[in-house]
Amino acid sequence: MINKLFKLAARPVGMAKRSDFTYEEVPVREPAEGELLVKVHYISLDPAMRGWMNPGKSYIRPVEIGEIMRAGTIGEVVASRHPQFHVGDYVSGTQGVQSYAISDGRGLVKVDPRLAPLPKYLNVLGMPGMTAYFGLLEVGQPKPGETVVVSAAAGAVGQIVGQIAKIKGCKAVGIAGGAEKCDFAVQELGYDACIDYKRGPIFPGLAQNCAEGVDVYFDNVGGDILDAVLARLRMRARVVICGAISQYNNTTPIAGPKNYLSLLVNRARMEGIVVFDWASRYAEAAQQMGQWMAEGKLKSREDVVQGIETFPETLLKLFNGENFGKLVLQVA
Amino acid sequence: MINKLFKLAARPVGMAKRSDFTYEEVPVREPAEGELLVKVHYISLDPAMRGWMNPGKSYIRPVEIGEIMRAGTIGEVVASRHPQFHVGDYVSGTQGVQSYAISDGRGLVKVDPRLAPLPKYLNVLGMPGMTAYFGLLEVGQPKPGETVVVSAAAGAVGQIVGQIAKIKGCKAVGIAGGAEKCDFAVQELGYDACIDYKRGPIFPGLAQNCAEGVDVYFDNVGGDILDAVLARLRMRARVVICGAISQYNNTTPIAGPKNYLSLLVNRARMEGIVVFDWASRYAEAAQQMGQWMAEGKLKSREDVVQGIETFPETLLKLFNGENFGKLVLQVA
Repeated sequence: MINKLFKLAARPVGMAKRSDFTYEEVPVREPAEGELLVKVHYISLDPAMRGWMNPGKSYIRPVEIGEIMRAGTIGEVVASRHPQFHVGDYVSGTQGVQSYAISDGRGLVKVDPRLAPLPKYLNVLGMPGMTAYFGLLEVGQPKPGETVVVSAAAGAVGQIVGQIAKIKGCKAVGIAGGAEKCDFAVQELGYDACIDYKRGPIFPGLAQNCAEGVDVYFDNVGGDILDAVLARLRMRARVVICGAISQYNNTTPIAGPKNYLSLLVNRARMEGIVVFDWASRYAEAAQQMGQWMAEGKLKSREDVVQGIETFPETLLKLFNGENFGKLVLQVA
Repeated sequence: MINKLFKLAARPVGMAKRSDFTYEEVPVREPAEGELLVKVHYISLDPAMRGWMNPGKSYIRPVEIGEIMRAGTIGEVVASRHPQFHVGDYVSGTQGVQSYAISDGRGLVKVDPRLAPLPKYLNVLGMPGMTAYFGLLEVGQPKPGETVVVSAAAGAVGQIVGQIAKIKGCKAVGIAGGAEKCDFAVQELGYDACIDYKRGPIFPGLAQNCAEGVDVYFDNVGGDILDAVLARLRMRARVVICGAISQYNNTTPIAGPKNYLSLLVNRARMEGIVVFDWASRYAEAAQQMGQWMAEGKLKSREDVVQGIETFPETLLKLFNGENFGKLVLQVA
C-alpha cells in the first residue's frame, strides 16, 4: 500500500499554490501495538486551513514546514492493533491530507455510515455543523422574530446557520455570490431572502430585507460585507465572528471594519467563535442536528471533488467562491 | 440680563472651528408659568459633542444648524414659576452652551453643592463617572486579579475607570499622552502602570505590563491604540467601546481595527456602551461613587477653563490631547 500525502513546503504568500506543498508517495507501514491504520476516504477542505499555514500564535498551532498538511478526515480502519478500534470501523479525525494514516487512536471518533453518508460527518455532523450550531445559538443568541443575516450563506457553515435560524423562529437573510447560490439558499435551505453580492453593493438588499435592522449577523467573510452589515445593526445586535475568508489571502494588513463604531451607537456586541471550545457539547449538538435531519428540517450540501492529487487546486475553490456547500476531497 | 450663547452654524469638516458656530448675546426673558430660569455656571465639554455636530442617525439626534449647541450643564435657579424648583437650587441638565437657560424642568436634576464642588457633577458624579462605572462594571465585567487596560487614562472617563478597576481588585494599566499625564495616572489615580503613547509604539509597554494578556480593554480612542491592544488580548477578553476620539475629526473614513480577528482567535468580545441606557441606575452609581470619594478611594480632576466666549477653542483641547481630567467651561 502506498500513502499519498501533501506536506507544507513553504508558507504561502497570498493564495496557496502547488509549490507551497510537496506531494509524496511513501509505503504504508504496519500499525504497531496500540496503533491502527486508517484508509482515508474523505478530506475536509476548510477556509481555516489557510490560517494554519501562517506562522505565529493563533487559536491552534501552525502547521510546520515539512509537516503533513493538517485536515479533518473520515476514513475506514483497515488494520488495527488497538483494543478500541476494529477493521471495518469508520472514524473521523484530523489525520491530514493523506490517503492512509497511522494513529494511536487519540482524537478519533467512530462514525456510523448507516446513519448518514460519510461526507455528512465532515459537514453538518462535523466541524461546520458544530460551528454553526454553537456560533449561532450560544454566541448569537437569536430570539424568535429576530432577523439573522448570514454571509457565505451557501457555504459549509452558512447553510446550517440559516436553517437553524429558521428552526428557531427567526427571519433568515443570506448573502452569497451568484444567482445559483442565492436560489439554493432560498429554495433549498429556506432562507427568507438571499442577497447576491456579485450583483453590486449589498446595502440596498439589506435595507429592503432587514427593514428593522439586523439582530444577529453571522460573519464568515469580513471585509466590505461586514462593514455593510455593521451599518445596518439594530439596537443590542450580536455579531458572531466566525471567519473572514475575504481577508485570509491578503498580502497587506487585513481591512478592519470601518463601521465598528456601530457597536457603540447600537450598544451591539461582536464576539468570536472557535468551535473547539464546545467540544464537550458536540454530542448534544449532533443528536439535535440528527433529529432535525430526520425530520427533514435540516439539509446540507457537499461539493465533493475526486482525487487527493488535486488538493492544492481544489483548496482554492474556497477562496475564489467556486465551492457550493461543504468542500470535500474524495481520496480515491 | 444677557444670555451669551453659541449656536451651531455649519457642520464641521475635520476639527470644529469658530466659524462653525455663531456667538450671540440676547436678552434673557422671564420664565412663564411652569418654567424656571437657570444661570449656568459650568458647561461640560465632551468628545461626544463632535459627533453630535454631524448629520445622520446616531445614538442621539444631531444638533441642527441654528440650534444652540448641546452640552451638559450645572447651574443655579435664579427665577422660578415651577412648583418643584426654587431660587437657589442647583441643577444639572443638558442646557447647552449658553449662560442662561429657560426650562420647563424636564431633564433637570437637583444637585447639592455641599456634598461636592459643582464641577464634580459634570465629572465623577456626572456622565463621565456614570460611563466609567457602567461601562467597566457592566460591559467589561472585570474579575479580581484580571488586567484592565484603559486608554485616555487621564481623561474624564479614564481616570474613573482605572480607579474602579483597582477598587475591584484588578491590575490597572493606563495609556496616556505625555509624562505628566502618566505620572498623574500612576501617582494620583493608582494605576499600576501607564504607557506614554507619545514616546513611541505602545506594544512593548503592553507586553511588559500585561504579561498574561489583557482581560478588559476600555477604549476611548480607537485607531492604532485599539489595534495594539487587540493584538494583546487574553482568552475571553472584553473590549468596551466607549469612544474613538482619534477618529472623530477624520475627513476620510475612520480606520477600522485591523486586528479585529483577535476577537476570533481569543474568543473575545467587543461591545459598545452608551451611558444613557443606564439612567435608571444613575442614583445607585452616584451613591457608590460618593461613598468611594468619602473613603478617599476615588479622586477626580477637572480642567476648568474660564469664559464661555472661549468655547470653540476650548473644545479643541479635547482633540489635541491638551486637557487633563474632565474639561469644563466655567461661564463667568
